[in-house]
Amino acid sequence: MSGAKLIGVGVGPGDPELMTLKSLRALGEADVIAHFAKAGNASHSRAIAARHLRAAVTELPLLYPVTTELPKCSAGYRDAIRDFYDSAAAEIAAHLDAGRVVAVICEGDPLFYGSYMHLHVRLAPRFATEIVAGVTGMSGCWSAAGMPIAHGDDVFTVLPATLPESELTRRLAEADAAVVMKVGRHLSKLRRALNSSGRLDRAIYVERGTMADAKMIPLSAKPDDEAPYFAVVLVPGWEGRP
Amino acid sequence: MSGAKLIGVGVGPGDPELMTLKSLRALGEADVIAHFAKAGNASHSRAIAARHLRAAVTELPLLYPVTTELPKCSAGYRDAIRDFYDSAAAEIAAHLDAGRVVAVICEGDPLFYGSYMHLHVRLAPRFATEIVAGVTGMSGCWSAAGMPIAHGDDVFTVLPATLPESELTRRLAEADAAVVMKVGRHLSKLRRALNSSGRLDRAIYVERGTMADAKMIPLSAKPDDEAPYFAVVLVPGWEGRP
Repeated sequence: MSGAKLIGVGVGPGDPELMTLKSLRALGEADVIAHFAKAGNASHSRAIAARHLRAAVTELPLLYPVTTELPKCSAGYRDAIRDFYDSAAAEIAAHLDAGRVVAVICEGDPLFYGSYMHLHVRLAPRFATEIVAGVTGMSGCWSAAGMPIAHGDDVFTVLPATLPESELTRRLAEADAAVVMKVGRHLSKLRRALNSSGRLDRAIYVERGTMADAKMIPLSAKPDDEAPYFAVVLVPGWEGRP
Repeated sequence: MSGAKLIGVGVGPGDPELMTLKSLRALGEADVIAHFAKAGNASHSRAIAARHLRAAVTELPLLYPVTTELPKCSAGYRDAIRDFYDSAAAEIAAHLDAGRVVAVICEGDPLFYGSYMHLHVRLAPRFATEIVAGVTGMSGCWSAAGMPIAHGDDVFTVLPATLPESELTRRLAEADAAVVMKVGRHLSKLRRALNSSGRLDRAIYVERGTMADAKMIPLSAKPDDEAPYFAVVLVPGWEGRP
């Protein structure tokens, strides 16, 4: 059993070239490669890492339950998600108990807004673990946009667009630099909050950050308030320094 | 001149294996490799990338001026730093004008609290540029600590320890998760701010994050308030979820 290990492997924001050397080594070492996906969809992290998966490796797809009919604040939703992570952790634990190395491949960085954390907290008390840090989705976005985001003594904040408008406004006004995630159906509210906080002129709207078909425009030039769930808005802190 | 290009290349937080495939390609493509260092010191980014530098490549060390005698808020300091970036940009521009590809290698991610940004804003209006995103220093730290940092709808904030105590306290209390940078001589103030904001129990002190001799302990177990400038404190948002 001494070889058993759980590895959370960041595979970066989308461009397969933004995978690290360490992530390739982890994929080479793993007996089992696990990846999250929505039921019925291809796994994003698997697509990023595909060319580096050994032909004979065991794959373990972890398919999120379909919960669209449940409000996210409901007990039913929380139970479904908790049961899903419990059973995913149990599947992985069975491989670890058999002495195998299991790599869970994760978009971006495993411990920064990722599903892997739910497995980590369940399994780290019982098994050896290792984390392979990855390039985050937000780094991929500001790099693709060529947009210096934060420097010097800037306060930098990541905000979910799900916050109430007054809180978004206040927090945007207080940050030197910000990234707003989960924009989706919150874009009109976010636009108002950026305007009220004096940040609209600097805001850059980004869709599919590091994909070949990435879209980046000043938010003030975007004519509508339609946005996919994973769109982000960058508010760079740079304003011309020495 | 059509081949001239400035590439900001993130080489990650310290472990050479956390370099990306794209960073290796950029190093292979570059005619000139530039790197920042303090005068009299080896360049950290060069040390990370050393094994991937071609023997015949032209290196351009960019040596920060010695400014220890000048207060950071003084006009003299600002002038010295501005002159340094102006002349570094001019040196790089001479290579770009000659049609060369210049890669500036950067610890972490080039556009996230990095010196490269000062060159980028000076040169991007005149030359083609590309950014190779990198794993940030903070990702390296929480990965080495195996510490889930932020998830779901968490508000995540990066704060410099240079802020006044009352502002540190208020901002720590408002963030679900935080990373405090530039700890150095501000550790006793930061400890008080973490205590007042109810975050001291969760705070992890990290020195030399992704180096072989990394040191990570709960801040509450660190007996003194001595810390090097680049030490960071992690305040994870995770508190047990579904």
